[in-house]
Amino acid sequence: MSISTAITELLRISHPILLAPMDMVSDARLTAAVIAAGGLGILGGGYGDEQWLVRELGLLEQAKSRYGVGFITWSMAKNPRLLDIALEHKPAAVMLSFGNPKPFADRIKRTGAILVCQVQSLALAKEAAESGADILVAQGAEAGGHGMSRGLFTLVPEIVDALGSTLPIVAAGGIADGRGLAAAFMLGASGALMGTRFYATQESAALQAAKERVLAATGDDTLRSIVFDISRRNIWPAPFTGRCLRNIHLDRWFGREIELLRHQEEASKYAEARREGNFDIAAVIAGEAIGLVQDLPSAGDVVQKVMRDASALLSNGALQVDSRSSL
Amino acid sequence: MSISTAITELLRISHPILLAPMDMVSDARLTAAVIAAGGLGILGGGYGDEQWLVRELGLLEQAKSRYGVGFITWSMAKNPRLLDIALEHKPAAVMLSFGNPKPFADRIKRTGAILVCQVQSLALAKEAAESGADILVAQGAEAGGHGMSRGLFTLVPEIVDALGSTLPIVAAGGIADGRGLAAAFMLGASGALMGTRFYATQESAALQAAKERVLAATGDDTLRSIVFDISRRNIWPAPFTGRCLRNIHLDRWFGREIELLRHQEEASKYAEARREGNFDIAAVIAGEAIGLVQDLPSAGDVVQKVMRDASALLSNGALQVDSRSSL
Repeated sequence: MSISTAITELLRISHPILLAPMDMVSDARLTAAVIAAGGLGILGGGYGDEQWLVRELGLLEQAKSRYGVGFITWSMAKNPRLLDIALEHKPAAVMLSFGNPKPFADRIKRTGAILVCQVQSLALAKEAAESGADILVAQGAEAGGHGMSRGLFTLVPEIVDALGSTLPIVAAGGIADGRGLAAAFMLGASGALMGTRFYATQESAALQAAKERVLAATGDDTLRSIVFDISRRNIWPAPFTGRCLRNIHLDRWFGREIELLRHQEEASKYAEARREGNFDIAAVIAGEAIGLVQDLPSAGDVVQKVMRDASALLSNGALQVDSRSSL
Repeated sequence: MSISTAITELLRISHPILLAPMDMVSDARLTAAVIAAGGLGILGGGYGDEQWLVRELGLLEQAKSRYGVGFITWSMAKNPRLLDIALEHKPAAVMLSFGNPKPFADRIKRTGAILVCQVQSLALAKEAAESGADILVAQGAEAGGHGMSRGLFTLVPEIVDALGSTLPIVAAGGIADGRGLAAAFMLGASGALMGTRFYATQESAALQAAKERVLAATGDDTLRSIVFDISRRNIWPAPFTGRCLRNIHLDRWFGREIELLRHQEEASKYAEARREGNFDIAAVIAGEAIGLVQDLPSAGDVVQKVMRDASALLSNGALQVDSRSSL
């Protein structure tokens, strides 16, 4: 079974599923796996390690597939050469998140790439549409990593009402299975972008110990804060906060962020924990959908199962309705 | 058209739509209007004004309809006589939110009333199920008024996975139209409880000036905080916070709650603003679904339109799926 939407047509993909460009996690291997399964893989350009970017882009180019590249806009803006490097590789799409896309929109679109803008509020959606976005990703507060406070359930239909007649909307944050994709369609979205679900796959570049914490946790176990930004001395512009799994470090410092900032030795301790993969201190960056993730399949199996389950739910929707009775 | 679910059967209602028992807003008139339209009206017992409760229960009794009564559990626990008064009127259902339902579950169920428990996390859902809940309302952070931090999009399927085989789940928080109800079904819910949408109806007891602010605002314009609890000297137990519409007062004090607590004159100013209906200072308690609410119809028209739109979406779900192509 397949589902055709504005997104599958525009991106020329078989299934309306996008990989979130997770920093360090969505590398060439995971990106290629999602592409092979019929979705759009988006390489996680992240904070911009140039060497990493060149190497991973090279790997994707060898695969001769249509892929996307994602950037953290405010970070990339400090070194726009990273965007130039990506554009030289002619990606099918460039995704910009967290910052004003306007200064980069023309340059991206002139190369023929589709401009995907991730937004977290109605106001940001309007700004991105005016900047020339071809696709909007509406990211709910449920999402892992950085985001804002609005829930996906109202964000999607409100953006669809305001802008859905001019460009397609993809739902992100909190989607990890076919139920989530089917619900996103009901709210007016044309597809789903998934992070946490792909984090816990065979191909994901996340450490095994981090993946195991994802499997063990429930959706109650994540928290949105700026504790890990402070801990790694990577302060984001307001109003973005980051969702990650609760651990000893987060429970210790949540609500005491100013104090943490002044404890300089905590930064070295945190850097060491990241190097060692000590996730009692280092953050496992994952969203509320963590409670729906119980296994470590291949990325291809994820895509197939999400599509199968969503298709079944959509196909059976009519069975719930008794059209004989009058309303 | 109609939609039969575990909720419509258990509650013996025509449509799987419940009125949120909004304090002061869900009075006998609004409750009766939702019942007349085929949903379950739930009277807002709120903080427990005994005179108000007796009067509104009397009005509902005259209408000889099956209704629900809702309580803020931690507040009612300070004066359980309120529950006794409600139970003497033999309501069809009692809804408990915000606090441990266990001490009251037996008393409620012995009268034959259905026990509806509103929960905001997987942990609270398990606690309520163990306490004897007949129905769980999973309330997302999108909701207006008090609540917690988890988004509806992941909360519903996670609770369904854990407890859906033993009792039905209703989705609440962020639902204001047929798209929301249809999406809730896809996530595994058996119905929807709506507050903000019914707040902005002809029959709602909210002040006209407050309703007009709801119509004018977008979903970006609400905020979860404890500013209005502090302002009216009604401090809730952690971890509950309250979502309301941003106004001059909230923008002034958000992030400075301790300072607000010490400014005692602010409490009198706030009380005066409530008496006068000055919503630059007094809170309009509404959820993120505010951005989906553009009109002031009757409650009956709301129910009919939600059902019509949800039925159409569910009936057409199969059209999105191309079952000829293999997956």
